[in-house]
Amino acid sequence: MDIKNQYFRQNVLITGGLGFIGSNLARHLLELGSKVTIVDNHDPDSGANRFNMEDIKDEVQVVEADINDASEMKQLVEGQNYLFNLAGQASHVGSMKEPFKDLQVNTVGQLRLLEVCRIYNPAIRIVYAGTRQVYGRPSYLPVDERHLLTPLDNNGVSKRAGEMYHIVYNRVHDMFTCVLRMTNTYGPRMRIKDDSLNFVGWWVRRLLEDQPLQIFGDGSQLRDLNHVDDVVNALLVCACHPISRGKIYNLGGEPVSLLSLARLMIEVLGHGRYELVPYPESRKRIDIGDYYGDYDLFHRDTNWEPRLSLRDGLTSLFEYFTQYKDHYI
Amino acid sequence: MDIKNQYFRQNVLITGGLGFIGSNLARHLLELGSKVTIVDNHDPDSGANRFNMEDIKDEVQVVEADINDASEMKQLVEGQNYLFNLAGQASHVGSMKEPFKDLQVNTVGQLRLLEVCRIYNPAIRIVYAGTRQVYGRPSYLPVDERHLLTPLDNNGVSKRAGEMYHIVYNRVHDMFTCVLRMTNTYGPRMRIKDDSLNFVGWWVRRLLEDQPLQIFGDGSQLRDLNHVDDVVNALLVCACHPISRGKIYNLGGEPVSLLSLARLMIEVLGHGRYELVPYPESRKRIDIGDYYGDYDLFHRDTNWEPRLSLRDGLTSLFEYFTQYKDHYI
Repeated sequence: MDIKNQYFRQNVLITGGLGFIGSNLARHLLELGSKVTIVDNHDPDSGANRFNMEDIKDEVQVVEADINDASEMKQLVEGQNYLFNLAGQASHVGSMKEPFKDLQVNTVGQLRLLEVCRIYNPAIRIVYAGTRQVYGRPSYLPVDERHLLTPLDNNGVSKRAGEMYHIVYNRVHDMFTCVLRMTNTYGPRMRIKDDSLNFVGWWVRRLLEDQPLQIFGDGSQLRDLNHVDDVVNALLVCACHPISRGKIYNLGGEPVSLLSLARLMIEVLGHGRYELVPYPESRKRIDIGDYYGDYDLFHRDTNWEPRLSLRDGLTSLFEYFTQYKDHYI
Repeated sequence: MDIKNQYFRQNVLITGGLGFIGSNLARHLLELGSKVTIVDNHDPDSGANRFNMEDIKDEVQVVEADINDASEMKQLVEGQNYLFNLAGQASHVGSMKEPFKDLQVNTVGQLRLLEVCRIYNPAIRIVYAGTRQVYGRPSYLPVDERHLLTPLDNNGVSKRAGEMYHIVYNRVHDMFTCVLRMTNTYGPRMRIKDDSLNFVGWWVRRLLEDQPLQIFGDGSQLRDLNHVDDVVNALLVCACHPISRGKIYNLGGEPVSLLSLARLMIEVLGHGRYELVPYPESRKRIDIGDYYGDYDLFHRDTNWEPRLSLRDGLTSLFEYFTQYKDHYI
């Protein structure tokens, strides 16, 4: 499927659009000729960063609002062809510290947004950013969409409820909704300030500041990573492909151990070091062990697959943050 | 396991205790020598009915409050040994009409209650009343706990989120929580006023008022039913058995078609008639098709199994409502 024509002169709304994935998506959509509106509550705990919009701020409408604000969302949703629903509280540790905030954003807010869409724009095509966190600790690898869902933290619960509402609104209200369960996404414009959202961003900062990477445990834990360009492509494919209506798909990539990843990052950057440290208590109980996702269903349905190698992806990552680090810390 | 001694002189809190299952549970607990406190918000859409407490009102402390009221719940939770957490919004159709109320009770309220327990009484033993509705339309029968969860309505989403929080609070905070996923429960003190919660109660009223039972479709749909005495026993077993800590269990019973059930109810009562009618639109999309649950896991772990035959159970049901119907309509 050629996605180019699907977005030309289309009205597209991105929730959480000041964040990492949303801001990269906005850029791609502009190239495809879309009219892009971004809504973001600019939560300091999220990946929202006004600098992510700096070079395209005149081409995109940016609205500072919360998805829980139904009257604001009503105006934003009307007339849109697509909704990329990326707003969310993504911190696992944060969800244990502030469980109600996590629930409000990821579940209550999602239901509110779906209700607004159902009432004011039921033909809108919605892609929801799910997370592999809903699986919990894998009982087999790679994890496909039939794997049991046993979230290990509040964030897994609230995100799962958010995606279930999307599927219910497809089944009951006949709306176009679909879910991409994302794994670790990395690339330009990600949060690197701290380790609250993603260890890769934190590692980027550590390396750029000549600090050692701290790897929890022995570093043998497997993860899969997707470069943001591949994730953006997945979002674009998912939203316009008829087959994805009402579906839940994993994304995923080649498994890599944390130790190998650390070594590759150091090699790509050209300097740096790492150290093995025991798990902090706050992480230990909610750590999921090894994980990598099976994205075969999405591949079979839409032909999507990750295109960037980890090496090329990390190169793009460091190029960006070597230049723009100061805007992210 | 002899559960008798486990509850003697124990402090037990029942949320939603004015309702059908809670009020039957309270009665059994009094017989076992427990000190019973009930909290209920007396929601008119729920099964709450003050008459359910009429004959034991002097032996039970009844508090009218909502589980979302953290300061009230703090006082009620302190000093309790057991919490039977039966408060909930159970109407599937109601959850589509009032999705935020459904979410507030079944998810936000549950998280609030768990937080209160974690802070003020982390040693309390909690059993949460789950529902088979979380499975959605079965892909195989009987449905065991490994079946995929694809709720077909908002109620399935909110109830699933509520049970997931219970499991997370076990895993992360080391609390004793467990979940019983109940199927259709019937018996004395159930809501018979309308069909919003349970078709069996509605059928009872229709038959007692000499109205025909209306069976949606051709009546071949399979369901399983548990008599409330068996469910109360399951709750009591689950809460005191060490093995159920952190577990999710199905309840279940012998499958019966709706047509056979209608005929048996008419036979047990001694009069009545039924008619086959098309599905109402509001039901069609959220109907789950055939369902009966596999309760083998709970049986293997605790030796629980349903003891009352459907015929004996229906006899007890009609005996009760023949006498007390006026208090329930």
